[in-house]
Amino acid sequence: MQPEGNVSIALVHYPVYNRNREIVTSAVTNLDLHDIARAARTFGLHRYYVVTPSLEQQELVRRIGSHWQDGWGGGYNPKRKAALELMTVVATLDDARDDLAGMYGVRPLTVVTGAAERVNGITFCNLRKRIAAKDRHWLLVFGTGWGLAEEIFEEADLVLEPIRGAADYNHLSVRSAASIIMDRLLGW
Amino acid sequence: MQPEGNVSIALVHYPVYNRNREIVTSAVTNLDLHDIARAARTFGLHRYYVVTPSLEQQELVRRIGSHWQDGWGGGYNPKRKAALELMTVVATLDDARDDLAGMYGVRPLTVVTGAAERVNGITFCNLRKRIAAKDRHWLLVFGTGWGLAEEIFEEADLVLEPIRGAADYNHLSVRSAASIIMDRLLGW
Repeated sequence: MQPEGNVSIALVHYPVYNRNREIVTSAVTNLDLHDIARAARTFGLHRYYVVTPSLEQQELVRRIGSHWQDGWGGGYNPKRKAALELMTVVATLDDARDDLAGMYGVRPLTVVTGAAERVNGITFCNLRKRIAAKDRHWLLVFGTGWGLAEEIFEEADLVLEPIRGAADYNHLSVRSAASIIMDRLLGW
Repeated sequence: MQPEGNVSIALVHYPVYNRNREIVTSAVTNLDLHDIARAARTFGLHRYYVVTPSLEQQELVRRIGSHWQDGWGGGYNPKRKAALELMTVVATLDDARDDLAGMYGVRPLTVVTGAAERVNGITFCNLRKRIAAKDRHWLLVFGTGWGLAEEIFEEADLVLEPIRGAADYNHLSVRSAASIIMDRLLGW
């Protein structure tokens, strides 16, 4: 099944910061796979790339995916199967871009998300309009751990403005942030 | 710390349906506590009630809460402490309403959420306006398992329209749904 959407999402486990601002590979979290896949299917996204260079972690992601697609889980919960069908594991963010370029003949525009304010950011409203024009493919990038390494921001085409809450607290889980951002860009 | 918000949230573990539409008590999920508490703090909610009649599960919720508030976790991650401070465990939804009534002298209006279309629902837009009027306190109710039992819908003051996605797939996790709904009602 190939959805129609022109937006894909990538969840990056390397390069991300740990709590001491060292660059690490974070561990895959089971509910990140499920929650983000379900939201991606709900909002009509094209692909959900789980990015990790760790071969062990790649194998874990494939095992979870195939359990719900081909194994016992697919019959038990067809809705979950439909969500996890969108999920693909890749070693690097470039592999995700190459995969989309292979399908579309043109590289997607990469939009990085994060909790911090940045110069040269794009607003939700403007990105929503650009996506709706349907003339490009888009890759939304989310980080795990304590956030995406600076190099990911530097090589991105655009940086999305952060979700601002009440007062100055803004510490959503990546599952919450990804759900809200998909809704703001594609929902309602 | 007592936030200013006039909206609270309740995550109900009983009465909810299981997969066979039998009424059960669902198990508490650790990430439901964290993700929803973090979103509740981000969007300025007043209280986050975790509803379960199971004494064992109540004890589990309290243990997780106090680990991050008073224990090792509070020093390790003060942001998480600020989120989990909003969390209170209660046995029933009525206990949550009574708790709010005790603070405000008037019972909150209860708004139930769910994935199905209902008659007499309120739209996101209208509920957002009513909340913004700041003349009442509101309790948003979310279910776990396969959804809230019918009796919860029957005794509610209002039922919120469902989140509609692309096509007819609408199977968000409660963590995603709660995050999106808080954003639609209080964010941007």
